Amino acid sequence: MPWIQKSFALSPRPRGFHLVTDEVARQLPELRTIERGLLHLFIQHTSASLSIGENADPSVRADFESHFDVLAPENARHYTHDAEGPDDMPAHLKSALLGCSVTIPITAGRLNLGTWQGIYLGEHRDRGGSRRVVATVMGE
Amino acid sequence: MPWIQKSFALSPRPRGFHLVTDEVARQLPELRTIERGLLHLFIQHTSASLSIGENADPSVRADFESHFDVLAPENARHYTHDAEGPDDMPAHLKSALLGCSVTIPITAGRLNLGTWQGIYLGEHRDRGGSRRVVATVMGE
Amino acid sequence: MPWIQKSFALSPRPRGFHLVTDEVARQLPELRTIERGLLHLFIQHTSASLSIGENADPSVRADFESHFDVLAPENARHYTHDAEGPDDMPAHLKSALLGCSVTIPITAGRLNLGTWQGIYLGEHRDRGGSRRVVATVMGE
Repeated sequence: MPWIQKSFALSPRPRGFHLVTDEVARQLPELRTIERGLLHLFIQHTSASLSIGENADPSVRADFESHFDVLAPENARHYTHDAEGPDDMPAHLKSALLGCSVTIPITAGRLNLGTWQGIYLGEHRDRGGSRRVVATVMGE
Repeated sequence: MPWIQKSFALSPRPRGFHLVTDEVARQLPELRTIERGLLHLFIQHTSASLSIGENADPSVRADFESHFDVLAPENARHYTHDAEGPDDMPAHLKSALLGCSVTIPITAGRLNLGTWQGIYLGEHRDRGGSRRVVATVMGE
Repeated sequence: MPWIQKSFALSPRPRGFHLVTDEVARQLPELRTIERGLLHLFIQHTSASLSIGENADPSVRADFESHFDVLAPENARHYTHDAEGPDDMPAHLKSALLGCSVTIPITAGRLNLGTWQGIYLGEHRDRGGSRRVVATVMGE
């Protein structure tokens, strides 16, 4: 089975946490050809993140945004990196806390997520724009 | 070498951090057939986590529980998602901070962990019950 | 394409966050033989971390050190694991928050990182010494 690798851009989103499971799956019709394998998604930025989160209630994503603003606040006194705006250093910290990649099992041609799991894009800049992702599909 | 993928349930645990290295290895006798490769473990829940931590002193796991309760406390004023109980929103946050998957090298038929490393199940709900894991083994 | 796996030591660093992209790439000339694939790096310690971060401005790495000292401070009252010094329990927590492995796409013989991304070694002990890494390269 050949390896599949493609690069694509996610639609721009406002600052916050966004479900992108369907947008990702639409970019990867090749998933259907994999009986068992893995999908690796890698976002090529240090001020956005990819993670797995609850897929049903938008209030969870809103609370993620509030809470990560507590964990990595703007304008903390100890920041020295502030030339790119108050949202920049917190964005780097959130990206590191949440991670820039996810690896998800593929089973019988589909992402084998739990019932309540979805792929979160964490957009941590005020105006992050479109974000590039490299997807690698491996399996058989 | 064919890919190996199986799904299994971890025994239910109380809220806290638990070493599950041996339980996982018992589910995967196929590891012995891999000379060099990777094991990917994926927990299909958004209120539990998988991570790598210190395997020797139970006080480390106790301190993880105390400290993640500080990082993602119950009843924070900014939470809006509270319909499922005070342990629910913190559980989602802990799962995102720690991650829902680990990838571990396999070398000469065994998990190639460091001397002091083990696989942690983070059970972040008061009554999480049995947790489902998808294991994918690849290599040669 | 055979799987490649090797173990090597990173040069010792002082406590803090350090860019190790070039040191890792020098250890892995085999990357050049991979058209599309993945590199998995796994640090065999629970008091150091591997993550992806901003590669240009050293002030970002300095702020990471300051901020993770806030997120996992020394001498927190709730720590019970203190026999190995005040930097030990925070180091375990930082390692879990940041992670002990990264998986990076390989494209056309090179790590396919974004323009501003680099590999961070988080050295979370005062005197951590040389850290062992297991690198697994897969692809075609």
